[in-house]
This record gives sequence, structure tokens and C-alpha cells, in this order.
Amino acid sequence: MKVNIIYVGNIKDKYYADAVAEYEKRLNAYCQVTNIELKDEQIKDGASQSEIAAAIRKEGDKILAALPQRAYNIALCVEGEMLSSEQLAERIDRITTGGESTVNFIVGGAFGMDPRVKQLADLRLSFSRMTFTHRMMRVMLIEQIYRAMNINAGGKYHK
Amino acid sequence: MKVNIIYVGNIKDKYYADAVAEYEKRLNAYCQVTNIELKDEQIKDGASQSEIAAAIRKEGDKILAALPQRAYNIALCVEGEMLSSEQLAERIDRITTGGESTVNFIVGGAFGMDPRVKQLADLRLSFSRMTFTHRMMRVMLIEQIYRAMNINAGGKYHK
Repeated sequence: MKVNIIYVGNIKDKYYADAVAEYEKRLNAYCQVTNIELKDEQIKDGASQSEIAAAIRKEGDKILAALPQRAYNIALCVEGEMLSSEQLAERIDRITTGGESTVNFIVGGAFGMDPRVKQLADLRLSFSRMTFTHRMMRVMLIEQIYRAMNINAGGKYHK
Repeated sequence: MKVNIIYVGNIKDKYYADAVAEYEKRLNAYCQVTNIELKDEQIKDGASQSEIAAAIRKEGDKILAALPQRAYNIALCVEGEMLSSEQLAERIDRITTGGESTVNFIVGGAFGMDPRVKQLADLRLSFSRMTFTHRMMRVMLIEQIYRAMNINAGGKYHK
């Protein structure tokens, strides 16, 4: 199984980068993980709504161009479906037993995700009603992917 | 305003400890933060349900003993109320304008939180339907407290 983590922006803080690297290493026991980091658009302080929308659209173009053709697409958005860790594990299990060998997890930019990407997603997944920093979301995401894989492998990490 | 973060267990990973320290430093601009770390009970692999319950109860005793007398108590639990970051900010604002000067945030041990602590809490707060590691929850919590304070202070962090 292949897992692609498609992410707009980069991790500047060493502590988050270290946490992500640690989970990436562990995840490689279960699947082939690829991080696809896309450059975020620079949005100035006091940008207008239409400038922000244009930036989100440009980021959307980059995401759409980066998506591998055949894959199950999971887009992270606050208004999406809430799953427990066990439900996410079960969903991933169903996807792969259904014959799909690639799962894309997509994290939009700091200002939001292009509606076209949300539309295209097979699953819109919400981690929380709360807003977290973008970089923190990336740690939270990779930890949940690892947790799901570990649950499916019968591991003890999640207990 | 005083904020106490009462936490069972400790942070072993440097990356999470660094992230917590960073937010703690920033939070001090808004309130007086105190971390109260309580020693977790050691639970062996294959412990029985009753051994686990006994450990949770012992951890509960420590939490109850550590709670400052007069305070608004917020206990984190997966089945609690889900609030957006803005709603949490509003709640904190209401607590303090209501005359309460101390807010306790309580994070239980890795195996769960004593029902007595949940019972006593003024608010049971759920961050997610997902389970995160204990240490990660501590980073997520302090980030949300900082975010809430920043929202209430009219800051730009959350934007």
C-alpha cells in the first residue's frame, strides 16, 4: 500500500519536523509513505477576500496537478466527517481490501482548501471542530495514519 | 487570570516538550500559567480491568488533591462537548467576566480519567473523536488555550 501526504506549506519549527520524521520512519513498516510538499502562496496582511480566494485557487491547481491518477483521496477539512481512530482504521482497511492500493491525504493551505479539491475527495475528514496550526495538523495527521495502520496490523500502539 | 494545566504523566519526547515550552512562553503574555505534572501509575501489559480501574482511581486521587479550591474546572475527555476555537475563547471569556480568576485544564492518564474528576468538572471538553497520544494532547491543549487567549485579546494568531 502507498500513502501520499500532500501538503501545502512547509514545517518551519524543528519540533514538529522531528515529530513528523519519527512517525514517517515508523510508518514505513506498514506502507510506502511519500510526502509531497507544495509551495504555499504568499498572502499579505490585509489581503482582500478575492485575493485570498485567488491564492486558494492557485494552491488548488498545485494540489490537483500533484495528485496521482488512481487513488483514494482523503481531504482534511473542519466541516468533514468525524471518525474515531478505529473508524479511520476500518475505512483504510476497506479501501485497500476494495482493491485501491494508494491513499492520498490532502492538507490545504493556511487559508483553506480549494472547493474543487473538496469536491473531488472520496472522503472529507474532520479531525476537530477546533482550528489547529497547519504544522500541528501535519503531526496530528501522520500520527493518526500510523495509529490506523497499527490498529489494522493488530499492534499495541493504540492501547 | 490564572491557568493551571494539570496533567497525569510526563513528556518524554523532546519535540513535544519544546513545543509546549514555546506556547507556555507566549501564553505568559496573557495569563499566569502553571503546569502541574502528576506521576502516572505504572500499568503492566496484560493488566486486568480491575487493576486498570484501580490505577485510574489512584490517578484521580492525585488530581483531586492537586486541584486549587476555587476554580473553573475543564476536564478533557473524548465523549465531552465539542467546541470550535472561537467557542472555547468565548467560554473562557464568560468564565472570567463571571468573576472566576482561575481555570484548571485537566488531562487524565493514558488509560483514562477517573469518573469522579469528570463529575466534578464544570465543562467536559472533547478535542476530537480520535485518540491522540497523551503527549500530543498536551501540545494540542496548550495551543488551543493560547489561541483562545489570542482571540479574546483581538490578536492575529488565529487568522
